[in-house]
Amino acid sequence: MRDINQFTVTDAVKDSFRDRSNERLVFLLDKLVEHLHDYVRETNLTQEEWLASLNFLYDCGQISTPDRHEFILLSDVLGLSAVVDMVNTKGGGTEMSNLGPFYLPEAPAKELGADLSGDREGVVMLANGVVRDTLGNPLPNATVDTWQADGSGMYPIQDPKQDKFDMRAVFKTDDQGRYYYTTLLPKSYTVPYDGPVGRILRATDRHAWRSKHLHYMLSAPGMRGIVTELFFEGDEYIDSDAVFGVRKSLIGKIQRVGRDDNLEYDLERKPDVRVDFDFVLSPVDR
Amino acid sequence: MRDINQFTVTDAVKDSFRDRSNERLVFLLDKLVEHLHDYVRETNLTQEEWLASLNFLYDCGQISTPDRHEFILLSDVLGLSAVVDMVNTKGGGTEMSNLGPFYLPEAPAKELGADLSGDREGVVMLANGVVRDTLGNPLPNATVDTWQADGSGMYPIQDPKQDKFDMRAVFKTDDQGRYYYTTLLPKSYTVPYDGPVGRILRATDRHAWRSKHLHYMLSAPGMRGIVTELFFEGDEYIDSDAVFGVRKSLIGKIQRVGRDDNLEYDLERKPDVRVDFDFVLSPVDR
Repeated sequence: MRDINQFTVTDAVKDSFRDRSNERLVFLLDKLVEHLHDYVRETNLTQEEWLASLNFLYDCGQISTPDRHEFILLSDVLGLSAVVDMVNTKGGGTEMSNLGPFYLPEAPAKELGADLSGDREGVVMLANGVVRDTLGNPLPNATVDTWQADGSGMYPIQDPKQDKFDMRAVFKTDDQGRYYYTTLLPKSYTVPYDGPVGRILRATDRHAWRSKHLHYMLSAPGMRGIVTELFFEGDEYIDSDAVFGVRKSLIGKIQRVGRDDNLEYDLERKPDVRVDFDFVLSPVDR
Repeated sequence: MRDINQFTVTDAVKDSFRDRSNERLVFLLDKLVEHLHDYVRETNLTQEEWLASLNFLYDCGQISTPDRHEFILLSDVLGLSAVVDMVNTKGGGTEMSNLGPFYLPEAPAKELGADLSGDREGVVMLANGVVRDTLGNPLPNATVDTWQADGSGMYPIQDPKQDKFDMRAVFKTDDQGRYYYTTLLPKSYTVPYDGPVGRILRATDRHAWRSKHLHYMLSAPGMRGIVTELFFEGDEYIDSDAVFGVRKSLIGKIQRVGRDDNLEYDLERKPDVRVDFDFVLSPVDR
């Protein structure tokens, strides 16, 4: 019979995947088995540590609901989501960053120049820029889907008393590839740390704060769609974002708008500050 | 500010564990982050694959209950549990193997020679041997905790109509280090494959059968306790156990017991067959 020991078991597991016709699936499983086995051999993981690890995943499962995905949060705080975003950033396009848990499909379409802040308290900000292709050509009619926290650090979807579609909108760029609207400068907030993932943060003295940001999902015909975030220069958590979402290339500068400044856009509301940021989409792989 | 890209993000995550006083925990987290990030970089994991993987873990969480730990099952079928057992097998002791989901603490203490088969159908088997230390000395008064499936492949704990403590017992070895009792030759059974883990088995054409086995948990004063399994030569699944529990050194031989054979033990019931198997415990680390 075959002899299985700590050196041959990895091949034994890989050999057990007898149907290898789904090449990608089997490749992903093979690599997963290699890394998990190497992890145990390198750490000499004890049986108590092994069971504690699996019970940790069990606890993540118990706290998860359709509205709370503790495994995505785990991936976020371990920087795994960041690496996935990074390896999928292609050829000169804007870098990708976390989707996060608050995206909603079917957010309301709004006209360029619209205001998202309503009567909320906070600093009114003009968010604007051009969506281009990798050659620098503006992309008219590109879709700019945005969502964000308000001036108190809360997403309206987290508050049953608010309209879940507030502080979000879908715009189409104009014939110069421009997007522009006013909204509130968002506030920082913490990722949920009352569950198993929070135990990791506390045990290693990590905070749960996200650097403040606007979320964007962009697409245009013939271009690779991207999910990304826009951060702000000088933010307190710019170097310690809890989910490693910040990239140097994704940082915008908040500039004061003077009372008498002439703005280049027709806006529903006069802003206090502005952030100018261009996005770049790369072509789809052919 | 710091620049995070796919090559520097791994160090950024490790640096985020600011309190490194729990050295073992931080070492385990560091190595986990390295392997997870390497996995993504080596596989160029797409965002769709990343989300599918996390949703797979979410599904494992949803099907898990106090009686069903889908994450342990996942660890088992990926051979992860086997590697953990292997790296923890120390200095000449009997190799360890899967604990499995059916262990119960506080199984009934029984006298040597007792019969566990009751009036169940099946082949009555004498299980016996000596528990020794690594120098070959017999270990009197060692604890031999055993549990197993019956002749139909079911653990009584799986059947609400049966006593959950049936087909299990705790023995103490005699002054020659011997254990002996009669029971049923167990039957093979499948691991649960109606959940997320079963999807992996089906997608890769793997069966869910375990090679038939007896479970043992052994301990003795001053010795490292072990959890292991005893398998049987010639079994249909000996080379394809679904959880990679079989080791060459853990295979016993079923031998026929003749009607007129004189057995060396005082037994409650006459067996049809016997399996002789000695266990070895290594000393605790000092």
